[in-house]
Amino acid sequence: MKTFSKNQLERYPFYLKYFKELQKEGVETISSPKIAKVLGYSEEQIRKDLQAISNEPGRPKKGRSVEKLIDTLETFLGYRDTTTAVIIGCGHLGQALLNYPNFQEMGLAVVGGFDTNPDLIGKEINGKSIHAMSELGEVALAQKVKVAIITVPAQYAQEAIDEAVQAGIHGIWNFAPTHVTVPYHIVIENFNFSSSLAVLIHRLYDGR
Amino acid sequence: MKTFSKNQLERYPFYLKYFKELQKEGVETISSPKIAKVLGYSEEQIRKDLQAISNEPGRPKKGRSVEKLIDTLETFLGYRDTTTAVIIGCGHLGQALLNYPNFQEMGLAVVGGFDTNPDLIGKEINGKSIHAMSELGEVALAQKVKVAIITVPAQYAQEAIDEAVQAGIHGIWNFAPTHVTVPYHIVIENFNFSSSLAVLIHRLYDGR
Repeated sequence: MKTFSKNQLERYPFYLKYFKELQKEGVETISSPKIAKVLGYSEEQIRKDLQAISNEPGRPKKGRSVEKLIDTLETFLGYRDTTTAVIIGCGHLGQALLNYPNFQEMGLAVVGGFDTNPDLIGKEINGKSIHAMSELGEVALAQKVKVAIITVPAQYAQEAIDEAVQAGIHGIWNFAPTHVTVPYHIVIENFNFSSSLAVLIHRLYDGR
Repeated sequence: MKTFSKNQLERYPFYLKYFKELQKEGVETISSPKIAKVLGYSEEQIRKDLQAISNEPGRPKKGRSVEKLIDTLETFLGYRDTTTAVIIGCGHLGQALLNYPNFQEMGLAVVGGFDTNPDLIGKEINGKSIHAMSELGEVALAQKVKVAIITVPAQYAQEAIDEAVQAGIHGIWNFAPTHVTVPYHIVIENFNFSSSLAVLIHRLYDGR
């Protein structure tokens, strides 16, 4: 089986966005040099990236079919499937995510939120109910929840993740800015302000 | 000058978080094998990462001083300096970031928000005013703004970034889920749900 680096996986949604823009403009084929110019990746990297998810070679003169590329990318990224998710922690960030309009097109169906705050429990945000944490196991089982999005304050992240794992949820998308541990069979992706900010600030002051 | 990969830069905040936890527990020294066990990086990687920002070698028996590591990391990450930032786009996500309590300790001072919505302009969130976009140049100059955090809808991202660049802001932290372009002297870091989700979903269904 092919293996994909984290950096490589992170590039695919950018290809998809760009190809969808092209499709909207009526463009039917695209070449690696053109993609390189717009997205800023090297031509070699682009060929490698696209080859890794498609069997169809680019034709040097005509380029690749935009429609087929979109099809391949959407399938590869799971946008054609539905992955059920819940949000644990319905403060500012959790509520912003309950309202976020683009998860659906990415194949992520957020079915509800969870919190321990009695003022929030029972509320509806964007048509999604906020449940008590004690109902997590029940909801996860009934709705076949695959992903828990963790938006609790840092000090509660480990506890929230432990409860998600106990509820049978296998994918953790951790927005809490802290280090956490999970059992080996659990998939965790940290979506971390501080890591992204570290890259920005370092580049901004590079050479100071 | 040393160069740092994106992955490497992204790891440093995790080291810092962990060392701060150790400090809170009264732990004075730490060894690479122990760090490896907790953070899940290889010992070799840890030695390389820490060596790259510090001149002090780890002593095989005693390990490294936690206090000195924290000092080195905070300085390297710019947490001891102040970088002034504004938020462009004060919808759900922008407001969540105006309320986010941890930017200050990362050296990022968010001084205000900007929006085009008349219902939002003039409002205060977490003590920070929301200004009209037309005031961006003036505020950026007066407050020496270094970073614009872009939280507008995808279709307005390029326009918002162009205005930030025109206002003399050199660092763009783009939260909008779309591809954008900036002049070569501008530093941009994309903080992108879809890229992070791509990594999670791929790992979750790996081998399907």
